[in-house]
Amino acid sequence: MAAGTRELKVELGERSYPIYIGSGLIEQAGEIFNRHGLPVKSPILLVTDSSVVDLYAEKVEAALASAGYSVTTAVVPSGEASKCLEVLDELVGAALEAGLDRKSTVIALGGGVVGDLAGFVAASYMRGVRFVQIPTTIQAHDSSVGGKVAVNHRLAKNIIGAFHQPEFVLYDLDTILSLPMREVRAGLSELVKQGLLWDGDFVHWCDEHAERLLALDPDALGYALYEGCNIKAIVVSKDERENDLRAILNLGHTIGHALEAVAGYGELLHGEAIAIGMVGAARLAVKFGYEERIAQETERLHLKFGLPVRIPSHLDTDEIMSAMMHDKKFSEGKMVFVVPTAIGSVEIRNDVPSSWVREIVDGLREGN
Amino acid sequence: MAAGTRELKVELGERSYPIYIGSGLIEQAGEIFNRHGLPVKSPILLVTDSSVVDLYAEKVEAALASAGYSVTTAVVPSGEASKCLEVLDELVGAALEAGLDRKSTVIALGGGVVGDLAGFVAASYMRGVRFVQIPTTIQAHDSSVGGKVAVNHRLAKNIIGAFHQPEFVLYDLDTILSLPMREVRAGLSELVKQGLLWDGDFVHWCDEHAERLLALDPDALGYALYEGCNIKAIVVSKDERENDLRAILNLGHTIGHALEAVAGYGELLHGEAIAIGMVGAARLAVKFGYEERIAQETERLHLKFGLPVRIPSHLDTDEIMSAMMHDKKFSEGKMVFVVPTAIGSVEIRNDVPSSWVREIVDGLREGN
Ligand SMILES: NC(=O)c1ccc[n+]([C@@H]2O[C@H](COP(=O)([O-])OP(=O)(O)OC[C@H]3O[C@@H](n4cnc5c(N)ncnc54)[C@H](O)[C@@H]3O)[C@@H](O)[C@H]2O)c1
Ligand SMILES: NC(=O)c1ccc[n+]([C@@H]2O[C@H](COP(=O)([O-])OP(=O)(O)OC[C@H]3O[C@@H](n4cnc5c(N)ncnc54)[C@H](O)[C@@H]3O)[C@@H](O)[C@H]2O)c1
Ligand SMILES: [Zn+2]
Ligand SMILES: [Zn+2]
Repeated sequence: MAAGTRELKVELGERSYPIYIGSGLIEQAGEIFNRHGLPVKSPILLVTDSSVVDLYAEKVEAALASAGYSVTTAVVPSGEASKCLEVLDELVGAALEAGLDRKSTVIALGGGVVGDLAGFVAASYMRGVRFVQIPTTIQAHDSSVGGKVAVNHRLAKNIIGAFHQPEFVLYDLDTILSLPMREVRAGLSELVKQGLLWDGDFVHWCDEHAERLLALDPDALGYALYEGCNIKAIVVSKDERENDLRAILNLGHTIGHALEAVAGYGELLHGEAIAIGMVGAARLAVKFGYEERIAQETERLHLKFGLPVRIPSHLDTDEIMSAMMHDKKFSEGKMVFVVPTAIGSVEIRNDVPSSWVREIVDGLREGN
Repeated sequence: MAAGTRELKVELGERSYPIYIGSGLIEQAGEIFNRHGLPVKSPILLVTDSSVVDLYAEKVEAALASAGYSVTTAVVPSGEASKCLEVLDELVGAALEAGLDRKSTVIALGGGVVGDLAGFVAASYMRGVRFVQIPTTIQAHDSSVGGKVAVNHRLAKNIIGAFHQPEFVLYDLDTILSLPMREVRAGLSELVKQGLLWDGDFVHWCDEHAERLLALDPDALGYALYEGCNIKAIVVSKDERENDLRAILNLGHTIGHALEAVAGYGELLHGEAIAIGMVGAARLAVKFGYEERIAQETERLHLKFGLPVRIPSHLDTDEIMSAMMHDKKFSEGKMVFVVPTAIGSVEIRNDVPSSWVREIVDGLREGN
C-alpha cells in the first residue's frame, strides 16, 4: 500500500471489512483484489455513471486486467434518477450477459448513487454476490460504511433495499479532485454531520480546517474522511440493522429527505438538503430547551462551508410535512427526530409535536 | 390449535420458525398472529393473486380483523409473469400507501409465485420487514421452507432475490381442495422429489398412497406435506445459504428450469418441468454407472402421478442447452448436476460433460 494510506476496519463480526483511504489506490486495485481472495475466474461487473466513466473506468479496468480479472463495465446515467428498479433490471441483464456467477464481484465506481444501486445489484443478484466500493465523492464516505444499499420508489427514497456489506472499500483521494465544487461542499456537509452527532472535537477540527478541506488538501481530506468513516463505523458496529443507536445517523435527514422529495430529486443535492435539515434539528433542540448556541453554531459552520441553511421559497410547507409522513423514520404514527443536545451529541426523540416541526419549517424559509 | 394439526420446526438458529399444517388454520390466523407477537398497531399487507383472492382473502382478512389487525389486500395477476420487478414496484407502492412501517408484516396468500414475490417485497421493503406465508398449493410446501425469495428477469428465473425467513407458515389443507388437478399433480412431483433425494422410505410411502394423495385425502396429504417440508428443513438447516449441501434440492431443476424458460413461462408447470428433469437426472445416473432401476422407477413413479416424462417435441435442443448456460447452477463454466445414486439419495457432480446432457435431452423427446 502506498505511503500515507490510512486503513480503517469496520467491525461487524464475520462481515467486518477494511476501508483504504489514500492517493494512487486505483492503480493498486488488482493487487488488492488478489490479496482479498477475489477469484480471477469469475467475471466482474464494474458499475459506474456517465460522468465518472470517462474519468476513471479505464484506470480501474486496466489495474484489474493486469491482475488477471475480466471486467465488464456498465454505465448508468449520472444522477439520483438511476437509483430505480428499471436501472436495476438493466444491470442484472448486464451481469447475466457478462456471465457473472455466484463467486463474482460487483464494483461500484462513483458516488453514493452508484454505490447504493450497484450495492443492491450485488445484494440481490443470485441472492447475493460480493461487492466492492470505489467511492469517488466525499458524500460517498457515508454510503461506504454500514452496508445500506437501496433504490428509490416513486413514492419514497431508499425504500427498496438490503443490508449488504462490501468486501472492502478503496477510497482513492485522487478521484475527488475532479469533483465539482458544489458536490464538494455538499459532501463536506455529511462529514460535519458525523462530528455533530458524535464528536465535538472533530467538529472543531473541521471548523479550523475548513479552507484546507474546501481546497481538497489531500492530508486534511484524508484525515477528515477517515474520521467521518470512523464515527459512522463505531455507530454501525454497535447496531448494524438499525434497531436503535444507528438511527442517530439520521441527524438532519428527516427534514432533508422531505426537501429532496418535494424539490424533485436533483434540485437540492443530498448534502445541501441535510445541511438545511441539520439547522432545523438544531432549532428543534432549542425548542426542547437546549442552549441557543447549538443552533447558532450549526448555522455558522454550514455557512462557512458555503452550504444552504434556508428552504427555497417555492417549496410548499404542506408538501414538506406530508413528505415526512411517508418517511420511514416515523414508527407507528409517532413523529421521530434526531435532536442535538450539544455540539457533538444527540438524542432520539419520539415525542416531537408536528406543530413544532411545521413552525420550524416555516421559520427556515428563505428571507427569514 | 385444532386437533390433527401438525407442527414442524425449521431449525435456523435465531431465524428458526414453525410450519403449522392442518385443517381450519386460516380461521385461527388472528390468534396465531397474536401469539407470535406481531404488533396490531402496524398495518399488514396481504398479497394474493387473482385466482386465490375470491376464494380465501376475505377469510384471512376477517380472521385478522377480529384479532385487531388492519389489513390491506393487494392482488397480482395469477401466474409466473407476476414474479417481476414491475409487480414488485406496484406492491411497494401499495405497502407505502397502506402505511406499512418497519414493524409491519407482509403475508403471502397463494402458491409459490405469490410466496416468492411477496417474500421479496418483505425482504426489501425498508430493507426487510416481517413475512408470513399462507401457502395454498402443494408446490408451495417447497417455497415455505428455506427462505429463498425472488423475482425473475427476462433472461433468467429467480435471479433477483434474497434469503428472508418467514415468522411462521400456516398451511391450511382446506385451501388445497380448490386446486385444479393439473396443479395437484405438479405439486406432488416436488413432494416426490424430496423423497428421491433424501428418503427412499418416503418415496415408497408416496408410491403406495398415490391414489389417496391424488384424491387430496387430508390425512395422507397432511402427512406427505409434513414429510416433504421436513426433508427440505433438514437440508436447509445444515446449509442455509446454499454453500454446498442445499444444492441437492435442485434435483431435476437444471433441465427443468431450462424447459420452463424455453417453453415460455406458463406452458409447462414448474412441477411438470422438473418431473421431466428428474427423469433426465436419473438417466444421467445410469450413464455414470448407477443401476438402471433408478431411471425406470423414477419414470414409473411420475407416470403413476400423471406427470409428463417427455420433452414437448416443439422445444429446440440448442435452445434448451443454451438456457442451461444461463442457469446459476453452473459455477465457473463447469456443468453441475444433482445425480441420483439410488432411490432416496443423490450426489452433486460438477464433471458432467455437456455432450451427455445433450444426448439425454434428445433422448427425452416425445416419441422416444
Ligand atoms: N447507503 C448509505 O448509507 C447512504 C448514505 C448517504 C447517502 N447515500 C446516498 O448517496 C447518494 C448521494 O451520493 P453522492 O452525493 O455521491 O451522489 P452521486 O453519486 O450522484 O454523485 C454526485 C455527482 O457527482 C458526479 N461525480 C461522482 N464522482 C465524481 C468525480 N470524482 N468527479 C466528477 N464528478 C463526479 C456524479 O456523476 C454525480 O453527478 C444519494 O442517493 C443518497 O441516498 C447513501
Ligand atoms: N422459494 C423457493 O424455495 C421455491 C421452491 C419451489 C418453487 N418456487 C417457485 O414457486 C412457483 C411455483 O409455485 P406454484 O406451483 O404454487 O405456482 P402458483 O403460485 O402460480 O400457483 C399455481 C396456480 O394455482 C392457482 N392457485 C393457487 N392456490 C390455489 C387454490 N388453493 N385453489 C385454486 N387455485 C389456486 C394460482 O392462481 C396459480 O394459477 C414458481 O415460481 C417457483 O419458482 C420457489
Ligand atoms: Zn445522508
Ligand atoms: Zn422446484
